[in-house]
Amino acid sequence: MNKLETIEQVRKYVGEARKAGRRIGFVPTMGALHEGHRSLMRAARAACDEVIVSIFVNPTQFGPGEDFERYPRPLEADLAACREEGVGAAFCPSVAEMYPPDSVTTVTVSRLTEGLCGAHRPGHFNGVTTVVTKLFNIVQPDVAFFGQKDAQQAAVIRRMVRDLCMPVEIVVCPTVREPDGLAISSRNSYLSAGERAQALSLSAALRWAEAQVRAGQRDVESLVREMRRQIDAAGPCGIDYIEIVDADDLRPKAVVEGRCLIALAVRIGNTRLIDNMVVEG
Amino acid sequence: MNKLETIEQVRKYVGEARKAGRRIGFVPTMGALHEGHRSLMRAARAACDEVIVSIFVNPTQFGPGEDFERYPRPLEADLAACREEGVGAAFCPSVAEMYPPDSVTTVTVSRLTEGLCGAHRPGHFNGVTTVVTKLFNIVQPDVAFFGQKDAQQAAVIRRMVRDLCMPVEIVVCPTVREPDGLAISSRNSYLSAGERAQALSLSAALRWAEAQVRAGQRDVESLVREMRRQIDAAGPCGIDYIEIVDADDLRPKAVVEGRCLIALAVRIGNTRLIDNMVVEG
Repeated sequence: MNKLETIEQVRKYVGEARKAGRRIGFVPTMGALHEGHRSLMRAARAACDEVIVSIFVNPTQFGPGEDFERYPRPLEADLAACREEGVGAAFCPSVAEMYPPDSVTTVTVSRLTEGLCGAHRPGHFNGVTTVVTKLFNIVQPDVAFFGQKDAQQAAVIRRMVRDLCMPVEIVVCPTVREPDGLAISSRNSYLSAGERAQALSLSAALRWAEAQVRAGQRDVESLVREMRRQIDAAGPCGIDYIEIVDADDLRPKAVVEGRCLIALAVRIGNTRLIDNMVVEG
Repeated sequence: MNKLETIEQVRKYVGEARKAGRRIGFVPTMGALHEGHRSLMRAARAACDEVIVSIFVNPTQFGPGEDFERYPRPLEADLAACREEGVGAAFCPSVAEMYPPDSVTTVTVSRLTEGLCGAHRPGHFNGVTTVVTKLFNIVQPDVAFFGQKDAQQAAVIRRMVRDLCMPVEIVVCPTVREPDGLAISSRNSYLSAGERAQALSLSAALRWAEAQVRAGQRDVESLVREMRRQIDAAGPCGIDYIEIVDADDLRPKAVVEGRCLIALAVRIGNTRLIDNMVVEG
């Protein structure tokens, strides 16, 4: 497994893989790799000849007061995880490598970034779309893998790729959960035991709503109201949003019809958790 | 010479060229092809195995009240010019092909787009950087060719490519001029005979300033003042700007030192003309 630190090194590595006609799969990450990331690496291995993972805690997607400084950076364990999953190269650039002085170019996806997390994290998705564009241009993958856990991010990246005609296929893999239902996240490590228990209310509320939709309930307002009640009842928390939107274009729905995304973001203690499920109405 | 109208056709054409190991040169244009464009095609032919030209009058880089509707579109003559210059394929997409409904993604270069033409054409460079990104992603060229005539555009594209790590080399070719000095432009066709004669004051003022710098004059304010006087003296016109800036990062200079760009935009009748020269201070 190759650890690459400069753009130049990646270009050389990728150039050789391309020359050999190898299909390149790419998994962009911020490190602190867990089972969710590993599932993406496995999907990439299954679909491609060569898997490249990037590990980069991207400062431009964190807002002021967010957790950029304390975000976990267990680099040795991350590299070991990549090795175990058969990754060919891990790209671990410095911030200076990714953002030379006087960087003035950004990629912006409007509309899809305005609701859900975008409404609560101004600038976040500009940071995401810009860094993902850069990483795509550096790695030039045939396919890139993202997690459904970050549903809005996945929808935004898909739209960006379509709008800018980027020559890359986007694959979105299912959310990986703990046995008790908690969506796996690098930020779960921030939770105390009590907060960890309380956090189960998120996936429980989503499962409840999913069952309601299966049973024929279509009214968004009453679904959201009851989910809010359940999550509030589990303990003190701040609900950033609970919403039901179109799964592709993220427009808010009044009635569950077609592929819909039930998405939520809840702050428990100092930790902001997100989760979602796709339902068919 | 192949005329391609869909992104799919270009991807197929380019895929085959790439497989054959051919180096691809790309010349993005808005058509109305003249000697300036031809010089780009010739530079591309000399440096590459395969030349692709795009012909697309991009609506998003025209402001309200600008000349999008009346911009010349002599498609058959343009295709003939491509044929004569040994171009392999001309990509002539419709607006609908380039901008599907619900397009929401833009590429923005800040700072470098704020002065010069950017100050007078709000949104223009966002249109340029977004469409050039799309075209680069569709054509995936090894090298792309731009004219020095659009000096700010060239500097903005260079910065965008650097910032977003786009895997393309940018070559900027010298401005092509009429024998009497007028910079060749598709918009020259708008000029009446009298306006055409008056328009010579632009290149004349630039040549005067260039000679002054060669002779040791370094004071930007007095150079610009005299250029303004000369252009005003040639006849009624509106001077959008006459500026001397750093040739790479476009920051205004008070003193001519290093590679500097003397750039101007002047409206004569209903026609807006730009021109520039690079000087070494």
